[in-house]
Amino acid sequence: MIRTRLYRDAVDGHEEVPTDQIADAIEPKQALLWVDCVEPTEAELDSLTTQLQVSPLATEDLHHGGQRTKLEHYRGHFHVAVHDCSLVEDRLVTREIDIVFGDGWVLSVRQPSDDPDDRAPFAIEPAVRRFELERTTEQAKDEGFLIWALLDVVVDRYFDVADRFDDRLDEVEEVVFSADKGDDIPKEMFDLRRGMVHFRRAVAPLREVLAALLRREADCLGDAALVHLQDVYDHVLRVTDWIETQRDLLTGLLEADLAVVSNRLNQVMKRMTSWGAILLGSTLIAGIYGMNFTHMPELDWVWGYPLALASMLALTVFLYTWFKRRDWL
Amino acid sequence: MIRTRLYRDAVDGHEEVPTDQIADAIEPKQALLWVDCVEPTEAELDSLTTQLQVSPLATEDLHHGGQRTKLEHYRGHFHVAVHDCSLVEDRLVTREIDIVFGDGWVLSVRQPSDDPDDRAPFAIEPAVRRFELERTTEQAKDEGFLIWALLDVVVDRYFDVADRFDDRLDEVEEVVFSADKGDDIPKEMFDLRRGMVHFRRAVAPLREVLAALLRREADCLGDAALVHLQDVYDHVLRVTDWIETQRDLLTGLLEADLAVVSNRLNQVMKRMTSWGAILLGSTLIAGIYGMNFTHMPELDWVWGYPLALASMLALTVFLYTWFKRRDWL
Amino acid sequence: MIRTRLYRDAVDGHEEVPTDQIADAIEPKQALLWVDCVEPTEAELDSLTTQLQVSPLATEDLHHGGQRTKLEHYRGHFHVAVHDCSLVEDRLVTREIDIVFGDGWVLSVRQPSDDPDDRAPFAIEPAVRRFELERTTEQAKDEGFLIWALLDVVVDRYFDVADRFDDRLDEVEEVVFSADKGDDIPKEMFDLRRGMVHFRRAVAPLREVLAALLRREADCLGDAALVHLQDVYDHVLRVTDWIETQRDLLTGLLEADLAVVSNRLNQVMKRMTSWGAILLGSTLIAGIYGMNFTHMPELDWVWGYPLALASMLALTVFLYTWFKRRDWL
Amino acid sequence: MIRTRLYRDAVDGHEEVPTDQIADAIEPKQALLWVDCVEPTEAELDSLTTQLQVSPLATEDLHHGGQRTKLEHYRGHFHVAVHDCSLVEDRLVTREIDIVFGDGWVLSVRQPSDDPDDRAPFAIEPAVRRFELERTTEQAKDEGFLIWALLDVVVDRYFDVADRFDDRLDEVEEVVFSADKGDDIPKEMFDLRRGMVHFRRAVAPLREVLAALLRREADCLGDAALVHLQDVYDHVLRVTDWIETQRDLLTGLLEADLAVVSNRLNQVMKRMTSWGAILLGSTLIAGIYGMNFTHMPELDWVWGYPLALASMLALTVFLYTWFKRRDWL
Amino acid sequence: MIRTRLYRDAVDGHEEVPTDQIADAIEPKQALLWVDCVEPTEAELDSLTTQLQVSPLATEDLHHGGQRTKLEHYRGHFHVAVHDCSLVEDRLVTREIDIVFGDGWVLSVRQPSDDPDDRAPFAIEPAVRRFELERTTEQAKDEGFLIWALLDVVVDRYFDVADRFDDRLDEVEEVVFSADKGDDIPKEMFDLRRGMVHFRRAVAPLREVLAALLRREADCLGDAALVHLQDVYDHVLRVTDWIETQRDLLTGLLEADLAVVSNRLNQVMKRMTSWGAILLGSTLIAGIYGMNFTHMPELDWVWGYPLALASMLALTVFLYTWFKRRDWL
Repeated sequence: MIRTRLYRDAVDGHEEVPTDQIADAIEPKQALLWVDCVEPTEAELDSLTTQLQVSPLATEDLHHGGQRTKLEHYRGHFHVAVHDCSLVEDRLVTREIDIVFGDGWVLSVRQPSDDPDDRAPFAIEPAVRRFELERTTEQAKDEGFLIWALLDVVVDRYFDVADRFDDRLDEVEEVVFSADKGDDIPKEMFDLRRGMVHFRRAVAPLREVLAALLRREADCLGDAALVHLQDVYDHVLRVTDWIETQRDLLTGLLEADLAVVSNRLNQVMKRMTSWGAILLGSTLIAGIYGMNFTHMPELDWVWGYPLALASMLALTVFLYTWFKRRDWL
Repeated sequence: MIRTRLYRDAVDGHEEVPTDQIADAIEPKQALLWVDCVEPTEAELDSLTTQLQVSPLATEDLHHGGQRTKLEHYRGHFHVAVHDCSLVEDRLVTREIDIVFGDGWVLSVRQPSDDPDDRAPFAIEPAVRRFELERTTEQAKDEGFLIWALLDVVVDRYFDVADRFDDRLDEVEEVVFSADKGDDIPKEMFDLRRGMVHFRRAVAPLREVLAALLRREADCLGDAALVHLQDVYDHVLRVTDWIETQRDLLTGLLEADLAVVSNRLNQVMKRMTSWGAILLGSTLIAGIYGMNFTHMPELDWVWGYPLALASMLALTVFLYTWFKRRDWL
Repeated sequence: MIRTRLYRDAVDGHEEVPTDQIADAIEPKQALLWVDCVEPTEAELDSLTTQLQVSPLATEDLHHGGQRTKLEHYRGHFHVAVHDCSLVEDRLVTREIDIVFGDGWVLSVRQPSDDPDDRAPFAIEPAVRRFELERTTEQAKDEGFLIWALLDVVVDRYFDVADRFDDRLDEVEEVVFSADKGDDIPKEMFDLRRGMVHFRRAVAPLREVLAALLRREADCLGDAALVHLQDVYDHVLRVTDWIETQRDLLTGLLEADLAVVSNRLNQVMKRMTSWGAILLGSTLIAGIYGMNFTHMPELDWVWGYPLALASMLALTVFLYTWFKRRDWL
Repeated sequence: MIRTRLYRDAVDGHEEVPTDQIADAIEPKQALLWVDCVEPTEAELDSLTTQLQVSPLATEDLHHGGQRTKLEHYRGHFHVAVHDCSLVEDRLVTREIDIVFGDGWVLSVRQPSDDPDDRAPFAIEPAVRRFELERTTEQAKDEGFLIWALLDVVVDRYFDVADRFDDRLDEVEEVVFSADKGDDIPKEMFDLRRGMVHFRRAVAPLREVLAALLRREADCLGDAALVHLQDVYDHVLRVTDWIETQRDLLTGLLEADLAVVSNRLNQVMKRMTSWGAILLGSTLIAGIYGMNFTHMPELDWVWGYPLALASMLALTVFLYTWFKRRDWL
Repeated sequence: MIRTRLYRDAVDGHEEVPTDQIADAIEPKQALLWVDCVEPTEAELDSLTTQLQVSPLATEDLHHGGQRTKLEHYRGHFHVAVHDCSLVEDRLVTREIDIVFGDGWVLSVRQPSDDPDDRAPFAIEPAVRRFELERTTEQAKDEGFLIWALLDVVVDRYFDVADRFDDRLDEVEEVVFSADKGDDIPKEMFDLRRGMVHFRRAVAPLREVLAALLRREADCLGDAALVHLQDVYDHVLRVTDWIETQRDLLTGLLEADLAVVSNRLNQVMKRMTSWGAILLGSTLIAGIYGMNFTHMPELDWVWGYPLALASMLALTVFLYTWFKRRDWL
């Protein structure tokens, strides 16, 4: 699906351009042309990149997807690859967005999601709304604002993901330190860790991308757009900071979990020793009076049997309180 | 709550300025205008930032709070975000302070605390006193001294927090190596670690902020103020150094705790083995004389029963001393 | 085995050159001479390097192999050593390729594999095809395209290796968290780790090599070739990123495995304690009624024996449900 | 206690200067004035710093002590803070020395030790001797030699501390790998670690301090003195190198200790299992012949009892050798 | 022992120079003077350094030995300290070589080994042969070739040490994953680690030393010598790379060992539980029929005793297969 939007300066709203005439529609000083594709056919994409004079290497990247988060410079145009992230049942789902832009035009290719159950690409509508709103209020003409709108929506969603990681960490923490410890804590921690590792790989390189844009490596972006991108940069720094904290805490939880399990093992062994001693003690008394010696005066006592039972009870009570006092039971 | 203070050069004390006339009150060479807000309404804050010509992006940060510790440059003004830290029942409570300053004016917004039980923001009085004292003695006119006063108070409080962490570390250490080990050591260590991680995140970026100010990135700060900020910088370095040491020691304690628990488990298992052998040995003797063979001469001995008991006792004493000598009991 | 290929500009295909006339065949502006050797004799190699005026130190490297992945500068020529990697039954097999190139010529020496069962060197055909295809379509004349073709094939194969590591990680993960845990998990993890360590050592330095080439350290490489090498560079970055992620996950798995094993030990100990208590409890009852006291009224009851058995059963059921409810069984 | 020493060029020995006339005694080209204080009163220190025109911020540092190891630049003078280290009963004791110097003068303030049992500050005599010796033989006139003498003595003592750490590491290693493992290994390792962490914090920043001096940041230090300081720098590098090695080894020891304890637990459990099986096996035989069946032919055999005992013995010997052979006993 | 060798340009072989006339023998353009000492007396060494005008600080280093691997610049001469390494019964033995060189002369001091059983210093003959061979074939006149010869021999021996570490790692790996695990694995790993730590400390700084020489910091070294040193540099990079790999693998082995021991403990506990249940079950049956109830019909059955034994056997077989199937035995 290919959708073109031509934003003319000083004109509200946009008009569509036939996909085979986009080369003619580019007028850097007077309009911004945005071509947005979802799952284009190879031929469509090749037609677009040929018209926009996109480098063959960048074209190949657009075809295949699976790019790192990155900024690549080509002659007269740039390629930014970012990943939208979301958590679906605690699994990180990423949706790659490849943005190629030059003076007066932007080509965005939204790759399908890596979630096998829902291949839908990144939903573009919030970015469109954000861009068009900014355009009306600020007369933001250049493509910098479009790029800002896309990145801002993506980065805002990172906060949701980080929030969800925080919730999961709290849940895991509660279970780790609670008495009735579930056995799947290691699995949950590993899943969390995997999610964080992949999340970090998607987010962290965005710092470099934005820093490069802020250093004015792409001179088609205007000053006003850069100020907005500065804000996105600050958000990315906050998210990466947050992730680092979460990783630290996850490591801490893991170590705490090992310590808790060790403590519990100690506790179990102490109980086992205590109960073993109590039961074996009584069994020994029973064994003694089960001996068949001819001369065992106690055996003939009238109170012999009750006394034996009483001595077992006394031993049990004694050992029980003794172990209890030493915190073994 | 908004409070304005206009400090005229060569005049002791300050006067108030109506909040809708602050734009006119700014006279960089002759006075310093300080506007301090606590939980301003959106309208109030917008009015202030419009009059002070604060960038919309900075204004948005002031509205929302939740900023990293950072220094941001805007055209003609700067935004410094710092976090006051304190420990409430061993939980780290932070209070964000956003300071925006330009030539001749300072706008401070004190965000509410992140402690759900006490939302009070950072108490400004100590900083006011420190600034006004310096002003009388040194005729420190520029806003650098006000920023110094704020940061100095905040950083001084960091030392209290680090001190408290030291106390907690000592307590944990004592329990780890004491005989009657509490079971909540892992939880306490994790809480300590979380506190330290958050504390570090609040403190460490302040180095960059101060280093940037000391590099004269904000040229409205005078030389005398920079010398004072150098001192704050040195304190921040000391605190961060201290935190690193504490993290090292906490890691060391955690490892020591695991080793101690392992040693104890060994000890428990040895005791269990020892007592098990002692009790089972006597039980075996009792079992032997409980056999029903027709021809068991011992059963008919007069001293058979006492001898059996004696052999049990002898075995017990022998095994006990044997295990004792090998340090298993 | 030595094979020479002389690619004349504007001429399709290549011609062979006798190995003792290669010095005369070099015409930088009009042709590209490629000499490819597999296990050359010492004399052959010396003859080649003498004709090509290769530095004695580089020649020694070509003789011995076993080089790090590296780029070395000599007067007027360069030495690039790369390693082709593949996984043979989960063991990393590397095949070193030494590429020496100067203006108008390339000398490639393919060292034997380090797999004792299959010493065959890197298969050159895919690189030849890739180069000759590029040559027809792009009239790529200079040696940069040949080097690109070689490196591109090698790096493409890195993705296969990384893919295989991902599969292995998934397999190990499944076993770690499954109930019937195999005992050779530590061994498999260590093998994976070793493979990754060696793979990383082979791949990571390639970043530096390519970055140096892209910085135009070798000025005999043309612009078009550099654009292609940029693409290889991007692939190398992706592979190294991927390896880092895998290392992170492997570490996470290892920690998870330790936690899982600890949990299981706890579980085993709890079961042992539970069953021990159940069996010892019944044994104690049997022991009590095995005592030989004269006055034990129960012994003479008609229902004494069934009652004793019933009490054992009751104790067993009670303890069983009690332990079951507390999740010890 | 304040002691002044005025070293005139070309004059052996030194003369004293009244503490209220030190400002007049400074003659950069012809003499070196050294003022050394131990626990000065506030008034004394203020008098000194006023006469020497020391910055108020540096003065405050001198009053309070507790500085990091650092070099601070002020207008026309410098502040170097170093820490003398020693081990008192395996606890690291540090003694801060604050050295402020300008052209022609040195002010040293020796802060009290942090050892609660012995508050004596750093002993200055060895440094005095070293300086005066150098002065006679080399006609070393400038303050660089005095600073060198102080730092050299301090750094030489670092080697003693590192030596002692080596000894402690050897002792701990011996216990870790010996059969009769003491239970306080974790405590000793943690104490060692704490000592090393603090030692490292004291020593490591000295590299930066000396590197800054060697970069001629303090131009009042002459060339000859710098050559001597280069030597101290080399010693500091050696000590820091040494500490890193020790930290590595301590970590290695800790991991080895955990492995040793785990091995021992395995050993204990195997013994417990073995002895349990042996004792329970014999008990079972005794139990069988303790059954009260009417028809048990063995019970009436004359050799029944001895045979039962013999079978117990045989079982014991068999199991014992069996377990012994499998290394469980 | 002091030995002088004067290599005159264009003259094969060398002549000796009396040790008190070496100052006169230095002719930078026409000859190379090499003075090699082993355990010189203080007087001899002082005489040499005085004649060669070596800096007193360098002289002190030569006297004491115990230097880090380093390069130090003095006026007109340089001091390189390197360490020859070898493994004697798996203990790393280092032999320090101090090389001081200026224009036209080289002074090498070979310090005694740190092996208490064999104090012999580094054997110089291989380096002499390598230098004299190079000299004949290449007319290598300057001291660069002598330094190259010394370093090349030292670095070549590093490969032997690394090879030996590889062998040891393989041995340890085999034991870790074999069934009959020796108890001294932790000790061997720690010894390996210590060896590697010390080896790395000796080797790693050589990179900096060689990089400094290659940056032409010592301009008395000619171009041809630098090309040879480049080769040594490459070897050092290979060795350090190798050590890093070995450290990684050792860490991996250690973690694997902990996992293996944990697995084994689990296995032991499962066996213990299984056998305990089997033995206690039979004991319980024996105990039941050992009760003295008057009314126990089984006791009077003719087949009672065999049935009891059979039920014990049946229980044993049942539990054994049950545990076997669940992999507890």
